[in-house]
Amino acid sequence: MADSTPPDDTPSAPAPDVTLPVDDPTYREGVIELLGVIAYGELSAFERLAEDATLAPTLRDKAELAQMANVELGHFLGLRDRLQALGVDPYAAMEPFEDTFIRFHAKTAPADWLEGLVKAFVGDGLAADFYREIAAYLDVDTRALVLESLAGTGDSQFVVARVRGAIEADPKVAGRLALWGRRLMGEALSQAQLVAAEHDGLTAVLVGGSGRGAGMDLAAIGRMFARMTENHAARMAELGLDS
Amino acid sequence: MADSTPPDDTPSAPAPDVTLPVDDPTYREGVIELLGVIAYGELSAFERLAEDATLAPTLRDKAELAQMANVELGHFLGLRDRLQALGVDPYAAMEPFEDTFIRFHAKTAPADWLEGLVKAFVGDGLAADFYREIAAYLDVDTRALVLESLAGTGDSQFVVARVRGAIEADPKVAGRLALWGRRLMGEALSQAQLVAAEHDGLTAVLVGGSGRGAGMDLAAIGRMFARMTENHAARMAELGLDS
Repeated sequence: MADSTPPDDTPSAPAPDVTLPVDDPTYREGVIELLGVIAYGELSAFERLAEDATLAPTLRDKAELAQMANVELGHFLGLRDRLQALGVDPYAAMEPFEDTFIRFHAKTAPADWLEGLVKAFVGDGLAADFYREIAAYLDVDTRALVLESLAGTGDSQFVVARVRGAIEADPKVAGRLALWGRRLMGEALSQAQLVAAEHDGLTAVLVGGSGRGAGMDLAAIGRMFARMTENHAARMAELGLDS
Repeated sequence: MADSTPPDDTPSAPAPDVTLPVDDPTYREGVIELLGVIAYGELSAFERLAEDATLAPTLRDKAELAQMANVELGHFLGLRDRLQALGVDPYAAMEPFEDTFIRFHAKTAPADWLEGLVKAFVGDGLAADFYREIAAYLDVDTRALVLESLAGTGDSQFVVARVRGAIEADPKVAGRLALWGRRLMGEALSQAQLVAAEHDGLTAVLVGGSGRGAGMDLAAIGRMFARMTENHAARMAELGLDS
């Protein structure tokens, strides 16, 4: 069904409104893994943004980053409560993804304030793309929750002004930050592939292996990654950077 | 008036409900300094709690600290908006206190997770005491805002369980943390004295030098510090620590 339906080509179009049973054990396992990885990602984003706030050159920038961090924590709390409502220990659901995020952040530690801003913007955008893409394959309740995790990501628009300002002040910065953006995207994709390989239930939700027939086939996943790469390029351009 | 009125001896009793004119220039200057130092303190508390979250031994602890950090940021945003409503650049009002907080945190950098927890708990409690004490000398609106900044500090109760648990697991910890608590209190008091010395307008609000007669005299300030020291000792005891 996936390769004949619009969602994987027009992810932002309303998804087919089938309510999928969270008590279908395979699907349930996949949803728990999905909520676990997103919850970890949001808590991790809070931590990184708060850390970047300490590098902020002005109090105003510090407050901006702190507010972005708070938005991510709000998303985390919603996901944590949903996992609890599903009768799952949210921290147990998140734990399996700890190594992934530790690896990712170890390989993408910002050298300065600007690299931190670009990482926040790029990471925020990639997460939002992924949420929109996967939402189409989720039951109504889970989809609503995942889409809520997009709220407020627009805050990172202030990043655009800061990065463009820095490039105007010193054009050499653009080359270094463009390279940084490519590295972030490369690491994100390779970590995503590791996660998919290590977590069958999660992958099943995406590829429809949970037997619901509502998932993507592998060609559709390929197209999804192509779309995410295009969106990444558009975001880099928004920052005034090549991708 | 102050030494004949209850507030400075029973700070938690309802304060005399006089509305003080924020357009009295001396009082206004003092209130702006007060909101500025509290706003900086709250933003700084957010930063420190978020930093401590990175030291958390479990994801659950990390999430608890992150939520405490968010509560502090919420307080900061309320204070920032109030300064804006007063027609003041909030960041300009905060800037003069930057050195104070940098000094304080440089002298009280936690060596580990437990020291971070004790610092959060002690700092949270001292701030709450100070807000309650000073509230009695503020106009109704400013008082309400300052008292709002007390909201949610009860979250730090989870700190009690963690610290007591750590002492049960290894009683030697208690001696080191008790020493740490004394150091935190000593640094807080000496920084507070520097702030009072450097910021006349702020001190005027406290001692009534702004000519409103609603402030504390120096003896009352002495009693205030005595009460805050007693409350600190009670909090340390709550953690199972000598003070």
